[in-house]
Amino acid sequence: MSPRSSSKENTKAVLIETGINIMMEKGFNNTGLSDVLSACGVPKGSFYYYFQSKEDFGLQIINSFDEEYAEQLDKVLGNRQLTAVDRLKKYIDDAIVNAEQRKCSRGCLIANLSQEMADQNEIFRTRLKEVIERRRSTFALVIQEAKDKEEICTDIDPREAAEFFLSAFEGAIMRSKVRKDTEPLLSFRKLIFSVVLQTRSR
Amino acid sequence: MSPRSSSKENTKAVLIETGINIMMEKGFNNTGLSDVLSACGVPKGSFYYYFQSKEDFGLQIINSFDEEYAEQLDKVLGNRQLTAVDRLKKYIDDAIVNAEQRKCSRGCLIANLSQEMADQNEIFRTRLKEVIERRRSTFALVIQEAKDKEEICTDIDPREAAEFFLSAFEGAIMRSKVRKDTEPLLSFRKLIFSVVLQTRSR
Repeated sequence: MSPRSSSKENTKAVLIETGINIMMEKGFNNTGLSDVLSACGVPKGSFYYYFQSKEDFGLQIINSFDEEYAEQLDKVLGNRQLTAVDRLKKYIDDAIVNAEQRKCSRGCLIANLSQEMADQNEIFRTRLKEVIERRRSTFALVIQEAKDKEEICTDIDPREAAEFFLSAFEGAIMRSKVRKDTEPLLSFRKLIFSVVLQTRSR
Repeated sequence: MSPRSSSKENTKAVLIETGINIMMEKGFNNTGLSDVLSACGVPKGSFYYYFQSKEDFGLQIINSFDEEYAEQLDKVLGNRQLTAVDRLKKYIDDAIVNAEQRKCSRGCLIANLSQEMADQNEIFRTRLKEVIERRRSTFALVIQEAKDKEEICTDIDPREAAEFFLSAFEGAIMRSKVRKDTEPLLSFRKLIFSVVLQTRSR
């Protein structure tokens, strides 16, 4: 779809998609609206028809990214064809393949914006906190299921394990971004499953 | 020491210290030189006497922060009064106290700049990679010592464990910054010692 030929209904979606791509690389503060507008050929006036401000644009970007990510997450973590542990492994394997394809660039938009904005904008922080908390609950449920079905051999608290899992995963993405290789993600994958969750299979 | 009364020799140090404090909160791109100069009362001409550019300033800030941090790290991780595991625990306990004192703001300058700059500036990325790799080696040595002295009961590879330890720690700092509480750091502390390193004491 050419952004210029998109209907009005699509203009907002194009702006958000372009914003996600640029902010993923440059962060919120360093992304100029002019970068976004020229990248998708939308005039400034249209931007302010859809968004009250750059802050509003940023928040809608978080919402849109989060919704899309939650859908993807649900496809993997909700796939009952796989055991709970295999779903977690597939999630990490997919992330490692993605990182390789992107040459370890970009990382995770939510983590990038968290690092950048948590101290700078309370509205962003509150929204980002909701996002990371909801993801934590999603992972905690899968870990709980793995525990109930005795796929993992440890008496770990699922919410605590989910918090640790996501801390270690997000830290590994960041370190891969700096190293420009997946070694941190591979160490994460190995240790989270063999040592932290003590999975029975594989 | 009042910055205005500081000698020429101190001016550079004052600029760097002020830069560290501002960049820790606002990041590199979002920190204006005028913010730094007005915060420490140094004229623009003096700035360009010490630094070629904002990029040069940023790199010297990383170097200075890294040197200071390495010294602090050495005091804790090199303290032979404590066992290797107790040194690692002290390092994390100190970080948790610091986070509480700062109300979980700021985080780690190296991690913040890594997240922000790794895809934007190859010179920054290379320097940040050196810093995180050197820290990893420092932690790997302590984990190796803990293993040699049988303070930990797991046959974990020290370099892999150090990579995982630092990923999980940095991720926990970031998540604490978003939540504005130390829960991610407390989960990290609990699981890294009891489950990942399987420490014998405490």
